[in-house]
Amino acid sequence: MAIDDVPGPSAQELLSLPRLAPLVPMLYVAWTDGELTPEEIRALGAAARAQPWLDLRSSAVLARWLDPLNPPTSRALAQLREHIRTTSERLEQSGQQSLAELGTQLAEVLGGKNALPASMPELARTLAPLETALGVSGVEAVRALVSPATPPPLSRAAPAPASFDVDKLRPILERTYPDVRARVRQWLAHPAFRYVDERDTSAYREQVFSWLKQLADRGLGKIAYPDDLSKVDLGAFIAAFETLASFDLSLVVKVGVNFGLFGGSIYFLGTERHHRQVLPKVASLELPGCFAMSELAHGSNVRDVETVAIYDDITGEFVVHTPSEGARKEWIGNAAQHARLATVFAQLEVKGERHGVHALLVPLRDEQGRLLHGVRVEDCGVKMGLNGVDNGRLWFDRVRVPRENLLDRFAQVSPQGEYTSSIPSASRRFFTMLGTLVAGRVSVACGGLSATKSGLAIAISYGDERRQFGPAGAPEARLLDYQTHQLRLLRPLATTYALDFALKYLVKRYVGRTEQDAMEVEALAAGLKAYSTWHTTRTLQVAREACGGQGYLVANRLPSLKADTDVFTTFEGDNTVLMQLVAKSLLTGYRQQFEDDRVFTVMKFIVERASGALTDRNPFQVRRTGSEHLRDGDFQVRALRFRESDLLASAAARLRKRLGTGVDSFQAFIQVQDHLQALAHAHVERVVLEQFLAGVEQVEDPAVKAVLGKLCDLYGLGCLVEASGWFLENDHIESGKAKAIRKEVTRLCAELRPDAVALVRAFDIPDSALAAPIGLGRPSP
Amino acid sequence: MAIDDVPGPSAQELLSLPRLAPLVPMLYVAWTDGELTPEEIRALGAAARAQPWLDLRSSAVLARWLDPLNPPTSRALAQLREHIRTTSERLEQSGQQSLAELGTQLAEVLGGKNALPASMPELARTLAPLETALGVSGVEAVRALVSPATPPPLSRAAPAPASFDVDKLRPILERTYPDVRARVRQWLAHPAFRYVDERDTSAYREQVFSWLKQLADRGLGKIAYPDDLSKVDLGAFIAAFETLASFDLSLVVKVGVNFGLFGGSIYFLGTERHHRQVLPKVASLELPGCFAMSELAHGSNVRDVETVAIYDDITGEFVVHTPSEGARKEWIGNAAQHARLATVFAQLEVKGERHGVHALLVPLRDEQGRLLHGVRVEDCGVKMGLNGVDNGRLWFDRVRVPRENLLDRFAQVSPQGEYTSSIPSASRRFFTMLGTLVAGRVSVACGGLSATKSGLAIAISYGDERRQFGPAGAPEARLLDYQTHQLRLLRPLATTYALDFALKYLVKRYVGRTEQDAMEVEALAAGLKAYSTWHTTRTLQVAREACGGQGYLVANRLPSLKADTDVFTTFEGDNTVLMQLVAKSLLTGYRQQFEDDRVFTVMKFIVERASGALTDRNPFQVRRTGSEHLRDGDFQVRALRFRESDLLASAAARLRKRLGTGVDSFQAFIQVQDHLQALAHAHVERVVLEQFLAGVEQVEDPAVKAVLGKLCDLYGLGCLVEASGWFLENDHIESGKAKAIRKEVTRLCAELRPDAVALVRAFDIPDSALAAPIGLGRPSP
Repeated sequence: MAIDDVPGPSAQELLSLPRLAPLVPMLYVAWTDGELTPEEIRALGAAARAQPWLDLRSSAVLARWLDPLNPPTSRALAQLREHIRTTSERLEQSGQQSLAELGTQLAEVLGGKNALPASMPELARTLAPLETALGVSGVEAVRALVSPATPPPLSRAAPAPASFDVDKLRPILERTYPDVRARVRQWLAHPAFRYVDERDTSAYREQVFSWLKQLADRGLGKIAYPDDLSKVDLGAFIAAFETLASFDLSLVVKVGVNFGLFGGSIYFLGTERHHRQVLPKVASLELPGCFAMSELAHGSNVRDVETVAIYDDITGEFVVHTPSEGARKEWIGNAAQHARLATVFAQLEVKGERHGVHALLVPLRDEQGRLLHGVRVEDCGVKMGLNGVDNGRLWFDRVRVPRENLLDRFAQVSPQGEYTSSIPSASRRFFTMLGTLVAGRVSVACGGLSATKSGLAIAISYGDERRQFGPAGAPEARLLDYQTHQLRLLRPLATTYALDFALKYLVKRYVGRTEQDAMEVEALAAGLKAYSTWHTTRTLQVAREACGGQGYLVANRLPSLKADTDVFTTFEGDNTVLMQLVAKSLLTGYRQQFEDDRVFTVMKFIVERASGALTDRNPFQVRRTGSEHLRDGDFQVRALRFRESDLLASAAARLRKRLGTGVDSFQAFIQVQDHLQALAHAHVERVVLEQFLAGVEQVEDPAVKAVLGKLCDLYGLGCLVEASGWFLENDHIESGKAKAIRKEVTRLCAELRPDAVALVRAFDIPDSALAAPIGLGRPSP
Repeated sequence: MAIDDVPGPSAQELLSLPRLAPLVPMLYVAWTDGELTPEEIRALGAAARAQPWLDLRSSAVLARWLDPLNPPTSRALAQLREHIRTTSERLEQSGQQSLAELGTQLAEVLGGKNALPASMPELARTLAPLETALGVSGVEAVRALVSPATPPPLSRAAPAPASFDVDKLRPILERTYPDVRARVRQWLAHPAFRYVDERDTSAYREQVFSWLKQLADRGLGKIAYPDDLSKVDLGAFIAAFETLASFDLSLVVKVGVNFGLFGGSIYFLGTERHHRQVLPKVASLELPGCFAMSELAHGSNVRDVETVAIYDDITGEFVVHTPSEGARKEWIGNAAQHARLATVFAQLEVKGERHGVHALLVPLRDEQGRLLHGVRVEDCGVKMGLNGVDNGRLWFDRVRVPRENLLDRFAQVSPQGEYTSSIPSASRRFFTMLGTLVAGRVSVACGGLSATKSGLAIAISYGDERRQFGPAGAPEARLLDYQTHQLRLLRPLATTYALDFALKYLVKRYVGRTEQDAMEVEALAAGLKAYSTWHTTRTLQVAREACGGQGYLVANRLPSLKADTDVFTTFEGDNTVLMQLVAKSLLTGYRQQFEDDRVFTVMKFIVERASGALTDRNPFQVRRTGSEHLRDGDFQVRALRFRESDLLASAAARLRKRLGTGVDSFQAFIQVQDHLQALAHAHVERVVLEQFLAGVEQVEDPAVKAVLGKLCDLYGLGCLVEASGWFLENDHIESGKAKAIRKEVTRLCAELRPDAVALVRAFDIPDSALAAPIGLGRPSP
């Protein structure tokens, strides 16, 4: 049975009935839009047939045109299309806002105003809700209908050229610290920086250390700590770190440990003496070092580390000691082989009194790399990835260091053993010292995003070349022409662009932070680190799978990208713990550390503040489904703001109730933990979308602006799709709108498909760094 | 400001007003349930105050009790609680169905019927909708309220003992082929089967081959191919494979390649001569072999492989040849080093005529392992995981093999070059030959699930021991006592149990398959392979992250579990392609391969059939939120059936419309691809839940049945939570119900937490195979 043999409703019959004329565009769209369920078609039919101006004959024909079990033939639909197009040429104006408006105007052209029973504007108003029910965007549907060209079929041949000039997008991605980025790229261009296929751990570590030395010689350390310390700009160092991260990630982590964490601890926690004596040797790698904070039993909860530093006022020394097995320093990068000096975090004890966690410099090895007396080191062993980094465990057996080794910016111990600090609260002091970690979190997020870009560049290039299956008698289709493949790769691509803007904002906030907003910046860093590294892990997994067996080969780099970054969700703060921190920070209004009494008061404040937002559901908004509405950043960001403030208010209410009924605060937080994670997630997504929107706003080149705008829409609508359950549950969107959003996401992916390769080329990853044969855009055999 | 200093409504005042007495239980629950938003409390207040029987004073007090900004003190709530409990002791009956019913009965006890303005049943009916609005389960809330004990606080000390006897659960998990499983466990107990920390690829491969040989010597091959071939039961081999998969996965894959794919191709596609001459040598590993199907350019679309086998009727030989670079055999396990014989899939050409893909045996190496003339091999190189497997590439340069090497069960070539086949359609023949892969898919799913069990055993043991953070002045809390940690690990645990039942069902269907249901079993295998291996990848990722830095150490096995199984989503059929196959199979009603004309007819049939189901939305059902309703497997499975049939109908309608308007079938399928993936997913989840329910039903021990029942509820409700957007969008559940389901999932996790360790112990993974120091349940320092 050939397709056009199936009996279907007749076009002639429909077009001969003036009373049905206003409905013709809608009927055409109903059948060709292809997204309508039988139920929706039935609803449409029922609503239309209820119109008083339909006579019996028209009603019967309409019923035939809306029978889901008997669709019109393609010929009948073509006749409708032709009718609409030719008639529309006779219209005086264009830009009709709805199919109903177009239909009534077409009917007027054909029959004159008097041929129709109701005044035209009124009829259009009556029909408008049907379009909403159809989930079609009126303006867009009208435009498509009256345009002469038929929509292009899915690309099968060579992909269409990109809609924008890559050279105009690249500078936007590199707008901060472009000189530093260019310098690092130049270093990486040197033949010394080629991947080694080295599975032997110690050889790999030596290779990485030799790379590290070459970078230090070329001046990487000086980017972090210039000779004139008043000119320190860690933003520049982070930009260098981010650029390096398109190359070997063990090297990047080694750079981060040595210059970032170790150097940073001296810079932030030490004073002029330490800066003068130690920092230049850190920058030159004369004194490789490590950052010894985590302990086996105290990974996330570092406030409870057990290592002690007891002041001996007779000799004027601190005695650093590991009192138990759980107190061994664990996972310390650079410790197993190369570090000569360590910043050790320990409980400071002076004259029998504990003052909480403080940092002090403890030498580990002499110039020949031999361990010093009292220091024991063990290798952590082979890891999932990052095997070029020598992670180790450290034990101290009553190791003595001079009093001057205390990094004494925030607290000092006099020779006589007087303890003084500018920060009276022990809790406050602890969080101030933890501040060292913030730069680390920012760097990890940025480095992870670079690896994500590499993974997407490989998978998208491969998806653009690789063909598999296809229509009979034609070349096989490219993977990226498949809808699922587009959804799989282009949505993470949009998120990657979104995060590029958000992380640049974070760096700016970090570099410009003041005492007033330091806590807020810390929370921002925590949230973006967690959100971004989870994105990295997820995206690299998807990229690996999207490349099939090729993605499983080490030669194609996806395995090491995935394995090396996997720990990013864990180190520099476990992501779940960080998100918890974000939520707490929101609940306290960024103002102070959490203490029960305060919580209770603050909760009340938040509940009051939010009671307004909760009534902010606009019955009109929740139903709008037009493309121009959905692609309005303002709509998207308002939805994300609504979710955040609603989750904040309800989390506050739930906590407050528990605290009010006598549950202790630890238990209360556990009981609403999932809610707090959702709140933090909602917060971060809102910030990311706002920053992406702000970034796009500033772009001048129209083609670049357009493509970034689509990516931004894809990100924003993608957030709504992910959380559609929440938005439906909270009556912020209706069913039809949820469906329209999903459709729009699919459509955006299809629109972005021709630009996909150009969008990853704009990341400007040197071929030598990308180094995956399948990712270089060479045609597959 | 201490908590109880906050002014709050007075309990005395409330309890002194008889008209408010019926509302007391509800007010108590509203404040202690802790899940109500301010908005809900406001709604509750408004509804209650609208009751005509409230006087002014009562109304004012009620307003104070429902002010979200001024909650009652814990003391006031304790007074309410005490009042309810003491009064309820005077009730004649128990088991009230709602808080309103309890409230009115309590009011009667205190004031007599006449003290209240309306008849009691009527009042209860009036109040009932408020409870629905609260999202509380009446029966459960009543039970909790009148029970003397207060709910236990979250466990901080040693975990409670398990609710069931592990020794009674274990046999249920091993109910099929218990002897085979015991035998394999016994083999693995031998000291030869200890992990080697071997990063050198060739040493690792030799180790794996030596293990393989030992297994063959002990009789593993004979489990697959006993001397009496009439007794072949591949179910036994799959059980052995599954049990082996708690040990090294390279060994498992090597077993699968040699005995499963290679041996299976001879068994299924060959005839008596091949069976007699070759199978015993396969079983004994005298003749290691490989399965050469995939080609570089034809990974998923193997119907288009390019390798040719041309019959030369002069010499009576086939000439096997690789005509292009894209035609090289790719990823062939066992090919790089050990295989002596290959089953090669090639386009068969006889007398200039092509007959489609056929399989034939091609020798690769001689007894000394030297490559034979015309065969070229290249190593695939280092992979993400499975580096103990020697994957290779193969090229054939006009290699001649005797006519008898054609595996000729379904098609024969006579010496004179006459081609005959019992299956006339080339397409049908191709799919019959592909049938060989089905056992492979079943095995991969089962092996992946074993690895998942290992990962969960490690992460759950660690989460049960590891402590981090805690309330002031108390020991730190165990990770598994955190809500997010429970959700992270116990939901995948439930899915793992669900899949254990579903995969045993699949094996049973596979072993008992007939010509009639072979296609259906193939689709089932495809869907379960995809769903299950995605679950493996996701769960091992979660397990790694849940163990923090410890999870990143190779010594703790999570890295190799993850890396080795990562390719399971790709090999034996790419998961996305397999899910597509499932959807197509549903659309054709399992009946035949897909051809346009048929689609069109079948679509129509489906649309008709589904039009009933679409109206099956029960306005009562969509609002029910009671725990006993949610924990009813019948409710869960009906919801999943509804989703499946709705997605099937709408997919059919969308396809039909496209085909009806002249879109070709390849394009039409691409345009609804995401929809088809969702359909396949919905189908598989429905099958898995049904099998889990059926499995639980058969358990006799009440404690085991109870805990499996909870896991089953957690799986079923977890599916609904995942898809809550869809169910809300399609009006199958209402907001309150979506929220109640989420709450129930959290509650189930908390209930299962004390059983978590026992549930992974029941997997019976030998300590020597698990081999992760953090997974052995030793207390952490």
